[in-house]
Amino acid sequence: MNDAGHHLHQMRAQTPLVHNITNYVAMNMMANVLLAAGASPAMVHAREEVAEFAALAQALSVNIGTLDPAWAEAMEMAARVMNDAGRPWVLDPVGVGATRFRQDVCARLLTLRPTVIRGNASEILALAGLGAKGRGADAADPVEAAESAARDLARRSGAVVAVSGPVDYVTDGAAAFRVANGHALMPRVTVMGCSLNGIIAAFLVDQPRLDATVAAMAYYGLAGEQAGRDAAGPGGFQVRFLDALYTLTPDEVRAGARVTRA
Amino acid sequence: MNDAGHHLHQMRAQTPLVHNITNYVAMNMMANVLLAAGASPAMVHAREEVAEFAALAQALSVNIGTLDPAWAEAMEMAARVMNDAGRPWVLDPVGVGATRFRQDVCARLLTLRPTVIRGNASEILALAGLGAKGRGADAADPVEAAESAARDLARRSGAVVAVSGPVDYVTDGAAAFRVANGHALMPRVTVMGCSLNGIIAAFLVDQPRLDATVAAMAYYGLAGEQAGRDAAGPGGFQVRFLDALYTLTPDEVRAGARVTRA
Amino acid sequence: MNDAGHHLHQMRAQTPLVHNITNYVAMNMMANVLLAAGASPAMVHAREEVAEFAALAQALSVNIGTLDPAWAEAMEMAARVMNDAGRPWVLDPVGVGATRFRQDVCARLLTLRPTVIRGNASEILALAGLGAKGRGADAADPVEAAESAARDLARRSGAVVAVSGPVDYVTDGAAAFRVANGHALMPRVTVMGCSLNGIIAAFLVDQPRLDATVAAMAYYGLAGEQAGRDAAGPGGFQVRFLDALYTLTPDEVRAGARVTRA
Repeated sequence: MNDAGHHLHQMRAQTPLVHNITNYVAMNMMANVLLAAGASPAMVHAREEVAEFAALAQALSVNIGTLDPAWAEAMEMAARVMNDAGRPWVLDPVGVGATRFRQDVCARLLTLRPTVIRGNASEILALAGLGAKGRGADAADPVEAAESAARDLARRSGAVVAVSGPVDYVTDGAAAFRVANGHALMPRVTVMGCSLNGIIAAFLVDQPRLDATVAAMAYYGLAGEQAGRDAAGPGGFQVRFLDALYTLTPDEVRAGARVTRA
Repeated sequence: MNDAGHHLHQMRAQTPLVHNITNYVAMNMMANVLLAAGASPAMVHAREEVAEFAALAQALSVNIGTLDPAWAEAMEMAARVMNDAGRPWVLDPVGVGATRFRQDVCARLLTLRPTVIRGNASEILALAGLGAKGRGADAADPVEAAESAARDLARRSGAVVAVSGPVDYVTDGAAAFRVANGHALMPRVTVMGCSLNGIIAAFLVDQPRLDATVAAMAYYGLAGEQAGRDAAGPGGFQVRFLDALYTLTPDEVRAGARVTRA
Repeated sequence: MNDAGHHLHQMRAQTPLVHNITNYVAMNMMANVLLAAGASPAMVHAREEVAEFAALAQALSVNIGTLDPAWAEAMEMAARVMNDAGRPWVLDPVGVGATRFRQDVCARLLTLRPTVIRGNASEILALAGLGAKGRGADAADPVEAAESAARDLARRSGAVVAVSGPVDYVTDGAAAFRVANGHALMPRVTVMGCSLNGIIAAFLVDQPRLDATVAAMAYYGLAGEQAGRDAAGPGGFQVRFLDALYTLTPDEVRAGARVTRA
């Protein structure tokens, strides 16, 4: 069974350098989330240096939130480096259903074989080509509606596919898990999904990808549970969430993870 | 008289999708402010998709804080979509007095008939062509000094014009209101004005624009009053402010709004 | 001896307008840090206006964190304005060891004679041409290892050079100081170094540069000590840090500064 505490311990033991090419909204929170958890974040996107920097990184996260063509090109350059080096990279297809431009960029990124794809149900449905129409970062569709699409996408792309929601669904196309950790305030704080992708990237370094993804999501959701326990709203939640990412021990994560086989 | 509680209720009932083309400083806070209040924010700016995305949104906020020519073009593209569709958009002329470039961009945006223009006194004076010289996001001028310019600008542009300050002034060129809600710590936190424009955009969806603007400012200022009550400084203030936006009820806003006719 | 309280008082008396051309990760926190301390921040980068805006500012901070060629050009334009006007500017060579592009940009910026250069030990070593290989924003090298390089760089560039670490080292190539203020949680929060450079820029306005730099670092580190005292983790730390920057008095800074001659 998944041992989320073990995978957290392994991640922290490495302080992995995670290269993030992400959206403007997420950058600060994502860096703070990675630092609180025990990883080392860096944000670099210029085409003049992105490949050179990716070669130094142990993992990459790519997020299309505030996309433009130059950034899309940088994402492809960095993903290619990771692929060629056999190092993990994670794709966050933010709002992919909303515009043709996002669909085109994601189609190109999929050919670069992401290690993990994580999004909400609407994004996974859109990415799987099932024509869901997203409204941006919101999930209009329930997780269950995207499970079959997630399995298909996993088989077709070779990636682990994770669907975020009240109960997450994670599959490599064969095995699948559900992660029930989380808190109702999480969707009321911006870039919680974006930041999770950075954490998944950190967990992937030298760890098996399906297990590492599930563990990252359980740890992240458990930090949310702790943060939500006595937060008055999304402001207090954010503060407590960073504190929980920092203080949670592998033993606490092992005890608190709510992971089941799907 | 203005019923701010009613307008808050109406806004929340819709969870409006608000498209923001805003500055890099504001993006994260603005998204969190909108989520805490009960709206659904999205940040999209690439010319390859901005018009397509605007067509999905119920309101748009445009902020020239960290402007460049490509972003200015995206702002025009999105504002044009909103205008053509009869949907509301809000202009925040950050630091418009500081450079010729900002003045040129704002002149072009004014031709696209913003529904609401909100800034500090120096910005409204500069936008009205009265030659005030801003120092950036600071207001060197008192609200009173900009009231006549605000009325002129409202008549000329067709927009509701709101001047932020210790007591705000809001006018459509005919009627005018003062909003006395707020707290002294608000100017010590960055992007509080920028984020307010997102809230105004959310309130404008299917609501009369002068009333909706006044209500948004009263709600926002009241959240500031609650946040400031026991904050030790601007750090604690921000946390409590997001919590207050989230927890304030329509009844509390009705009771706490300090709105008078000017 | 350095009177950090006096320099804080002088800075606040001016509310200096600090122009920042910084990275996307840092923008919001940096603005909040400057506002909490009592300065007035502005972020402007477009080549169409950056020189015009720099002419209004009392100090400039330049940070290469999320660099690209257009931003690099804007940095040069603004630094040139400050130099020509005899006004201070501060360089933060984030991750300069990581890529050739960063090295080239920093080489050009060094010719524009920054007033102060502040970085971690790895960055100062890399900038001094000693071939340290940085991993991004992390400091792999201890402060002591960079002291000789800092003195050389100060003499060669004409800048005050500050090396951040558990105990900071600050030199103008002749005199040198150590600043022992700080807290272990500071490296677990992103952009703490970037934001410090804004504070240094604010302190430099009309104050002697070596003393002002040392004072800014003592004040900043002391705020960190206060914040860390009862923070559970990096989330609570950030909140308390902004509050401490806001509430610390010149007398408290005078009493708490731990500055020694090196």
